Amino acid sequence: MSELELFGKDRLTLLGETPLVAETPESLLDDETTPIARFFIRNNGLLPQRIDDPEAWRFTIDGEVERPLDLSLADLKSGFPTKTFRMVLECGGNGRAFFEPKAEGNAWTNGGAGCAEWTGVSLGDVLREAGLKETARFTGHFGADPDKNGSFEKQAMSRGMPIAKALEDHTLLVWAMNGEPLPFIHGGPLRLIVPGWPGSLSQKWLTRIWLRDREHDGPGMTGLSYRVPVRPIPPGSDGTNVETRILESMPVRSIVTAPADGSRCPAGTRSIIVRGAAWAGDDTVARVDCSIDGGATWMPAQMTPPRNRYDWVRWSASIALPGDGFYEIIARATDSQGRAQPFRAANWNPNGYGCNVVHRVAVTVGEGS
Amino acid sequence: MSELELFGKDRLTLLGETPLVAETPESLLDDETTPIARFFIRNNGLLPQRIDDPEAWRFTIDGEVERPLDLSLADLKSGFPTKTFRMVLECGGNGRAFFEPKAEGNAWTNGGAGCAEWTGVSLGDVLREAGLKETARFTGHFGADPDKNGSFEKQAMSRGMPIAKALEDHTLLVWAMNGEPLPFIHGGPLRLIVPGWPGSLSQKWLTRIWLRDREHDGPGMTGLSYRVPVRPIPPGSDGTNVETRILESMPVRSIVTAPADGSRCPAGTRSIIVRGAAWAGDDTVARVDCSIDGGATWMPAQMTPPRNRYDWVRWSASIALPGDGFYEIIARATDSQGRAQPFRAANWNPNGYGCNVVHRVAVTVGEGS
Repeated sequence: MSELELFGKDRLTLLGETPLVAETPESLLDDETTPIARFFIRNNGLLPQRIDDPEAWRFTIDGEVERPLDLSLADLKSGFPTKTFRMVLECGGNGRAFFEPKAEGNAWTNGGAGCAEWTGVSLGDVLREAGLKETARFTGHFGADPDKNGSFEKQAMSRGMPIAKALEDHTLLVWAMNGEPLPFIHGGPLRLIVPGWPGSLSQKWLTRIWLRDREHDGPGMTGLSYRVPVRPIPPGSDGTNVETRILESMPVRSIVTAPADGSRCPAGTRSIIVRGAAWAGDDTVARVDCSIDGGATWMPAQMTPPRNRYDWVRWSASIALPGDGFYEIIARATDSQGRAQPFRAANWNPNGYGCNVVHRVAVTVGEGS
Repeated sequence: MSELELFGKDRLTLLGETPLVAETPESLLDDETTPIARFFIRNNGLLPQRIDDPEAWRFTIDGEVERPLDLSLADLKSGFPTKTFRMVLECGGNGRAFFEPKAEGNAWTNGGAGCAEWTGVSLGDVLREAGLKETARFTGHFGADPDKNGSFEKQAMSRGMPIAKALEDHTLLVWAMNGEPLPFIHGGPLRLIVPGWPGSLSQKWLTRIWLRDREHDGPGMTGLSYRVPVRPIPPGSDGTNVETRILESMPVRSIVTAPADGSRCPAGTRSIIVRGAAWAGDDTVARVDCSIDGGATWMPAQMTPPRNRYDWVRWSASIALPGDGFYEIIARATDSQGRAQPFRAANWNPNGYGCNVVHRVAVTVGEGS
């Protein structure tokens, strides 16, 4: 039994074993709510020890607060209003495989993303209980996982966010996913969900939030980690002497979830239903268009409104096929600021963040040749 | 002295020596009217014998006509109204280098095209003088050039067109280019210009036009020559058992003629003038847009109206640069039927015709990195 099967995963693509990283083929993201069995996995270190009593899981809030807190999961559940939102979680490197030349890191196609129902409490409610000092400018997150070498001396990943993002209603401390207790592999018993921003902010196996008077400097915050150039650099640059900024909101993206890449339809098929999902970080999706002629002409897709902020948009289009043959279906989403997915990633960066080139799916009608 | 210099050519890129084929780097196409020194060269066979007295050049019109004609160039000049149009001439394989995987043939980038002033008479005027029979459905063109092996037994290239295209006012028998006698290397003393369609129809060193009651079947008309699949086929197919049609009107294309690819601007440059040209086969150019972010956002270019039908559109745009760094300028033209240049050629074919993906030019502002 593979490690993925061990965690109840269904046909994910293994990208790395230590740490365990696996993505979801786009065609397995065809559900409105992504099933746990098909939700991508991203770790930066080894897995922590499993614990017997999830309700006893403890975490602290300290630093620039009036009243440092030391709470159990049970305290969280009983002490604050419970909220459930369906929200996209996406790796900062999603789409990385499409950068040319290749960038560093796991070669995600577009499946380093999923949309689940997350249940928990707003981090803001808990921070207000702790009493934020005026000097509380930034969070720093800590989890129970050891680093890649099994050591606890240095965190595998410790990122943070500006206080405004931490206080958003949708930034949650989460203990349930799709109505079930948060699975261990997804950070259970307790994790952060910081929607719209790189998944690395959504600390798993959460043990501590440190309120800081400055930008957090844990692993994942400095150098080129989760940072992108302020000014565009030539593809292939090594990133030395490049001025960078923190990668915050993720860019607009659309994926085709049906038909699957490489599908065949019977000869004579003259229309095809195409379905997919689209999302846009902190922003919203204004439109999705499809093309079967390399982007020469487009037709708009119908969109199902998102259930709540940070939910993805499900879309579909009935596309006429002029004849048998080979087609590449392209989907392109545009955000509410008019930024469409590019056809060529103009934002190459050494670690390969934010690559959101259009998704293409090949379909052959009839025999092909 | 290279063969290109021998023909007075300025910095063209040699694609083949036998037959002689050379294209123009896009940045050398920055003139309204392409100078002869920068006009691309495409041959399918060897060059014919030069002749001493151009005015004595003779050609015939025969086949499905009432009165077969045998005319000298002097007869043409004196017997029919002279016309001058500025028109694009473009190789059917222009853009071929951008197909993936590679297709057969010369690896044209976007410089297998130029726009010159052509002076001659309308082929239609001459055909009417010959008296077209009702059975005249198609032309067949013949030139004085031997094939690649120096033989005259088989034409190097002999194509033809439906009678409606032959009767267009802009389909010319041409003896002058940019006000000068038509240069030998461009088919002088006499050639056809069939605007909007693949350059192979514009027979050089013209000796005969045969009016036929059916589609012409000379070299360049059968098999996969200047033919494209009726239905899209998977990139890389060998083309066996593929139903094809003759490539007629060329697709819409835009090129950036300034700045040149790989240009550098001083640090602090915050806007740049981009210039180019666009054309659309038998159709017209409705708009040209530019992007510096991989096609995520676009800005419209200003267009100078074409001088006459089949002239190219010169366009320009002042593009704001948000900072120093590396930029790729993309230009995309859209024809009057709403067909834009694709970002990925969806019309792959074994011989690589009609590839009109968007043109990209890299520019670095400041030091880059």
